[in-house]
Amino acid sequence: MVIPGFRFAAAAAGIKKAGGLDLALVAADAPCAAAGVFTRNRVKAAPVLLSRERLRAGKAQAVLVNSGNANACTGPGGLADAREASRGAAQLLRIPERLVLPASTGVIGQMLPLERLLAALPDLAARLHPGGLPEVAQAIMTTDTRPKTASLKEKIGGRQVTVAGVAKGAGMIHPDLATLLVFLFTDAAASRRVLQTLLRRALSCSFNRITVDGDTSTNDTILLLASGKAGNSLITDEGPEMGALAETLTQVMADLAGQVVADGEGARHIFRVEVRGAATPGEALKAARTVALSPLVKTAVAGRDVNWGRIMAALGRSGARFDPQRVEIAFGDAPVVQKGQGLGAHAEAAAQKVIQAGSFTLYIHLHAGDAADYYDTCDLTEDYIRINASYRS
Amino acid sequence: MVIPGFRFAAAAAGIKKAGGLDLALVAADAPCAAAGVFTRNRVKAAPVLLSRERLRAGKAQAVLVNSGNANACTGPGGLADAREASRGAAQLLRIPERLVLPASTGVIGQMLPLERLLAALPDLAARLHPGGLPEVAQAIMTTDTRPKTASLKEKIGGRQVTVAGVAKGAGMIHPDLATLLVFLFTDAAASRRVLQTLLRRALSCSFNRITVDGDTSTNDTILLLASGKAGNSLITDEGPEMGALAETLTQVMADLAGQVVADGEGARHIFRVEVRGAATPGEALKAARTVALSPLVKTAVAGRDVNWGRIMAALGRSGARFDPQRVEIAFGDAPVVQKGQGLGAHAEAAAQKVIQAGSFTLYIHLHAGDAADYYDTCDLTEDYIRINASYRS
Repeated sequence: MVIPGFRFAAAAAGIKKAGGLDLALVAADAPCAAAGVFTRNRVKAAPVLLSRERLRAGKAQAVLVNSGNANACTGPGGLADAREASRGAAQLLRIPERLVLPASTGVIGQMLPLERLLAALPDLAARLHPGGLPEVAQAIMTTDTRPKTASLKEKIGGRQVTVAGVAKGAGMIHPDLATLLVFLFTDAAASRRVLQTLLRRALSCSFNRITVDGDTSTNDTILLLASGKAGNSLITDEGPEMGALAETLTQVMADLAGQVVADGEGARHIFRVEVRGAATPGEALKAARTVALSPLVKTAVAGRDVNWGRIMAALGRSGARFDPQRVEIAFGDAPVVQKGQGLGAHAEAAAQKVIQAGSFTLYIHLHAGDAADYYDTCDLTEDYIRINASYRS
Repeated sequence: MVIPGFRFAAAAAGIKKAGGLDLALVAADAPCAAAGVFTRNRVKAAPVLLSRERLRAGKAQAVLVNSGNANACTGPGGLADAREASRGAAQLLRIPERLVLPASTGVIGQMLPLERLLAALPDLAARLHPGGLPEVAQAIMTTDTRPKTASLKEKIGGRQVTVAGVAKGAGMIHPDLATLLVFLFTDAAASRRVLQTLLRRALSCSFNRITVDGDTSTNDTILLLASGKAGNSLITDEGPEMGALAETLTQVMADLAGQVVADGEGARHIFRVEVRGAATPGEALKAARTVALSPLVKTAVAGRDVNWGRIMAALGRSGARFDPQRVEIAFGDAPVVQKGQGLGAHAEAAAQKVIQAGSFTLYIHLHAGDAADYYDTCDLTEDYIRINASYRS
């Protein structure tokens, strides 16, 4: 998974209490066009504030990211720490400080162990290499049980283009916008404006359609850097090249988003809630989202219980308009509700087999219009509680 | 706990799979002024539709309630069943059918075992007695671990007035309106319009300020019946008598609501989220509600972890406007955040002691205005998952 123009490295800097890789550096050979999306949470971590500010120029050459400490709710001192860390990386890379984008994930409210971080930087910079992206995926994990990477190659404008990315996130994931940490790299040549448009578009069918627990983080960050090394002529506007890059980016991001849901804290079943026949697109989304977020629906799936009554109850409070007597519900190809009423034990037994497969789509038809939308989610198990009750200990 | 003018009885009718009391009847000696509040869920159970319709007349003389079966998503057949059950009770009580208010709670989507219910009615009607309210509290339990009753006596208009009630509910509780099953009885004389006003007012400081899991039911029902046997002159308008009755009713309902939160499924800690200094009343409520509903905050409390970063993150996505650098957070009398930053390990140790007490108030000051509001909630434990993953089995 080499993306021409980029090098990567990771280190164990002693930031994570449990040890292991917790610091990663990404460096481009030259300044890249860059785009980003950040958390909409009013409480923003120091690195979010700094990276957002720096990205206004639409250029970046390095990403410095740590796990184990969110550097959030750390006041002016936290902001100074983020600046100093990125300054350290900039000096080693001999690039302007403003081209380094910092990111952090981990516990909120503790000061970054800046000395340990700075001490690890020289070795990190020395070890940068083109094949290091999987190490970055490792270094950004917190409660994740496995690293998440995805990549695609595509002919665009007559040249082979690579899009690759890593993501981190298993809990505290919710699409009230930018979610978790996602770093995307491409050797395509595209303007910053095109990159920002592509990123926003791809979000709506990837990270903005997944939920694990309905919480949003102070640190959510998605970055996209384009080195231009593929040699295609610069994409600056709508057209077949932009369309092809959009398609490739969306596939990589959807792949990563799927990996995040599948790694939901404690998740044993993952499912898509697909709502059709809603009166408006907004109501389709509301309905899918309310079902996907319902703790009662999620625990029922954990227990492999075809408890469609809880789905009806969630739909009923979602704000979507519909006639309960017309609703249809199916687990995969097993219908369990028609005209708002259950189809009985035999139908539920078939649906239970669908749940048991571990990954399925829950189809809901409201028969109130033509709008459709979906949400990906996972079940809610005892392990989610275990993980989150002891996260800081 | 006798309320002049009312008699009560409960029976084991074989509706609950596990056995035990599952059917209750309440009968007044004469038609009562009555008020009710019902679920705003678009999917409404048959007894909700029927009771709401009957209450338009503002009069009722009996309540027939079962647990073990919600009679929701049961179509025209379910509505016919609710009618037939209340007709059975009406005949035995020799009162018009329209004066019987049915209510149900339990599994959604299964037809009511009507024959068993009807077979149990004659004995139930024969055993009605003035001291039977605690039996009703028993009969309406589903995942509740204990019955919930409350009563108060107060001098109103020179006469001794009693207000008493029972409540049912431990999960699927959320104040997007009328919550769970609550039946309130008083011997005060008051007009139906006064009763409805009092009920709505008392809701806003009781059942509309509690949350267990954010879900709302298809069956939520709160009923208030007034027999008028206290002999006070009929309360028809604002004044000291209406004020005194409001105060008494609110206390009884707040007591019941507190019992419901304390019995939250799997709950080991209960806490009030009290937000002050919000820019508007709406934002105060949003902030309190978002923190109270956050799975990450609730699991942290389960683990007795003073993870205030999750509180900051929840506030940040609540929609309330505030400057993160001015926020204060305290667990009881132990402050942990000032000016948006943590006060360190010593402060958190003191806060942990507050959590350990099992019941506490989480104080949040946003310093963005003068508005305040609160929400009562409980922690989220492995037992919540266990209970809800196996509810129907």
